[in-house]
Amino acid sequence: MRAGTDTFFTSRWIERPEHVSELDPAALPLGFKAAAVAAGLKPDGLDVGVLFSEEAETVSAARFTTNARVGAPVVASREADLGRLRAVVANSGGSNTGDGERGLHTAYATQALAAELLEIEPAQVGVASTGVIGMELPREPLLNGVRSAIERLGDDADTFSRAILTSDRDVKRTCLNVALPGGEVRLAAQAKGAGMISPRYATMFCFVQTDAELSQETIELLTGVTVKRSFDRITVDGQLSTSDTVFALANGASGLRVEPETEAELRLGEAMDAMLRQLAIEIVGDGEGCTRVGRIVVRGRSDTVEPVARAIANSPLVKTALHGADPNFGRILQAAGMAYPPGEGFVVDLEIEDRQVVSAGATVIDDLRELGPLVQGDEVQYTLTLPGEGAETEVFFSDLSPEYVHFNSEYTS
Amino acid sequence: MRAGTDTFFTSRWIERPEHVSELDPAALPLGFKAAAVAAGLKPDGLDVGVLFSEEAETVSAARFTTNARVGAPVVASREADLGRLRAVVANSGGSNTGDGERGLHTAYATQALAAELLEIEPAQVGVASTGVIGMELPREPLLNGVRSAIERLGDDADTFSRAILTSDRDVKRTCLNVALPGGEVRLAAQAKGAGMISPRYATMFCFVQTDAELSQETIELLTGVTVKRSFDRITVDGQLSTSDTVFALANGASGLRVEPETEAELRLGEAMDAMLRQLAIEIVGDGEGCTRVGRIVVRGRSDTVEPVARAIANSPLVKTALHGADPNFGRILQAAGMAYPPGEGFVVDLEIEDRQVVSAGATVIDDLRELGPLVQGDEVQYTLTLPGEGAETEVFFSDLSPEYVHFNSEYTS
Repeated sequence: MRAGTDTFFTSRWIERPEHVSELDPAALPLGFKAAAVAAGLKPDGLDVGVLFSEEAETVSAARFTTNARVGAPVVASREADLGRLRAVVANSGGSNTGDGERGLHTAYATQALAAELLEIEPAQVGVASTGVIGMELPREPLLNGVRSAIERLGDDADTFSRAILTSDRDVKRTCLNVALPGGEVRLAAQAKGAGMISPRYATMFCFVQTDAELSQETIELLTGVTVKRSFDRITVDGQLSTSDTVFALANGASGLRVEPETEAELRLGEAMDAMLRQLAIEIVGDGEGCTRVGRIVVRGRSDTVEPVARAIANSPLVKTALHGADPNFGRILQAAGMAYPPGEGFVVDLEIEDRQVVSAGATVIDDLRELGPLVQGDEVQYTLTLPGEGAETEVFFSDLSPEYVHFNSEYTS
Repeated sequence: MRAGTDTFFTSRWIERPEHVSELDPAALPLGFKAAAVAAGLKPDGLDVGVLFSEEAETVSAARFTTNARVGAPVVASREADLGRLRAVVANSGGSNTGDGERGLHTAYATQALAAELLEIEPAQVGVASTGVIGMELPREPLLNGVRSAIERLGDDADTFSRAILTSDRDVKRTCLNVALPGGEVRLAAQAKGAGMISPRYATMFCFVQTDAELSQETIELLTGVTVKRSFDRITVDGQLSTSDTVFALANGASGLRVEPETEAELRLGEAMDAMLRQLAIEIVGDGEGCTRVGRIVVRGRSDTVEPVARAIANSPLVKTALHGADPNFGRILQAAGMAYPPGEGFVVDLEIEDRQVVSAGATVIDDLRELGPLVQGDEVQYTLTLPGEGAETEVFFSDLSPEYVHFNSEYTS
């Protein structure tokens, strides 16, 4: 992260698009309201938040974890009308996962209550919960929290963006102004997560709002593409959550319609892409105990780049080396080889930052200490070129520090 | 590990077979010689060892890592006559991995020199190196070490078993007496490894010797079966080494022939199985920073038990919980769900030690603290029953401690 800047776009790997400017980071696009309250699900602090779009014609898109064990809120949300959501209820203090029928009824009751109070359908309410897996999420405090939050709905997302946090060190949010050919729209998001999974609890969330007018197909497309390039490309500990959730809502309150395959769609897409990638890198940087963010870029054949990049980004040896500012690149080759088809020629090039370390399979440096200065920064890039061509991928990852272990060794209950 | 016992079989999960007794742990079977010297590959201490069978009719079997990036010694050993090995040269202080042609020539030169001095064929010499990946292994000191070790060959494996260590806390070796129907044979092994990979360096090794007379097919069969049940079932950090090597040699010096499908083969197999499983658990228990060993048993369909057991054993969240004696079983369900086919019903049972925690998918305990006493021991067992039947597997794994991170964050060079 670049220190001393007050821009949202702090990663050197993310460029702010030219037609994007920043608003108050807690602001919301037109026609959106939010609030949160302390409902007692956590020992203290905000823990139940509601986000609402006032526009009847709001369209939406959603993405969820692919874990076979999902939380009840994911089950309930998947059954909702995911293209026509108008509200999101999110809580920390309990993931409502693994509590059987009781947990599922709590998720349905949340949708029903919010729908009644907001005068929409239960199927238009997305729900998302984060916290310890396997234990009961108390229903009455949650529903009381929903009631109170809805009474307090206001024009900014400040409390909402705080209520979704668990082990996060800070809020992750922004509100952007996007200049389209026909005028300006707003694009905002509030995220949480201190890892792909935020270990002591669980889950990453991201809630996106825009007052641009989009078709359901367009928000689905933009969400799909930008989530793939952001939250799908990060890891703290390789642990897929039971509860990861992205909800994106577009309500048209700006009066500006964005048609498919136009300059306006391109600009809005670029803005959403930069925004979600920055938030994704913030989640990595906020990984429990994280002190340094790595980026592994892998080039090669389409069937090899992805598993190799994941193996490197999830290797505790690569991650501890990054933590120690240790250029021990043998660990990158070992992790890559673990995920590469055995029996095929494994002749690779490796660069750390812009320095060639391995060329055509042979080490081209004489002393590891030469590489020391390259791995001292807050962000370190590794580029690995495998045999074959046609594909390139990247994964952003946290280092692994003693603090991660301390944090996750503590007694849960 | 059971403290205060002087038996080799310290894990409560391994039974010493009835017909097995223990000899001096550094002893060798008849007709085997070993020695090691300090050749300067490491800053200090023994680092080059040679093991030799005096019998011309020795048969052997070998197993190697499946990493696509292997060390030069693995390449050279794979090209050898793996059914007719008579000698093993092993060194610590450098894994000779990723050094291109130069490294390969060093491995070949080692085989050639040992063969010349021992009056055998170069193809009868297995080689194995462990240490930092990617840097040169100095050839002349290594060859000088081979010469000196061969001059010192003697009747025990004490120095040999020390020379192969890297980050290990202690030697891992035994020599057993196995009572067969026709008489007694000896079975010995020397292993190293502080994890599936021993991170700062790399690699697990195990060298097995018996003076029983076996066909090449029999030692191949026994090695294959027992390695699958031992070293293939452990993990410290999920990192497949570039250099894992098992060499098993049988030289017939006892005069006792073991025929296929006899009581003698069964007993020898049971002894080798218990020996390698105990050594494998010792490698886990010696995992860098390890304070506690976990065993996950997974029952279900043949296509799901293995990936689920691995996902649990490699989860840093499960491993930090084990370290902290934290019964946070939600992390086991999350890791299992990550490796289970999405969309299929994930209705499971979970036991910690003998206590039912989840039954038919629902939590059956009220307070996590009830489980605290179950996870305090040196060895903790988890049993997960997935939908479906017909398969069961197990993986032994270390906890993840701050010491692991400290150790692996230090500067390599």
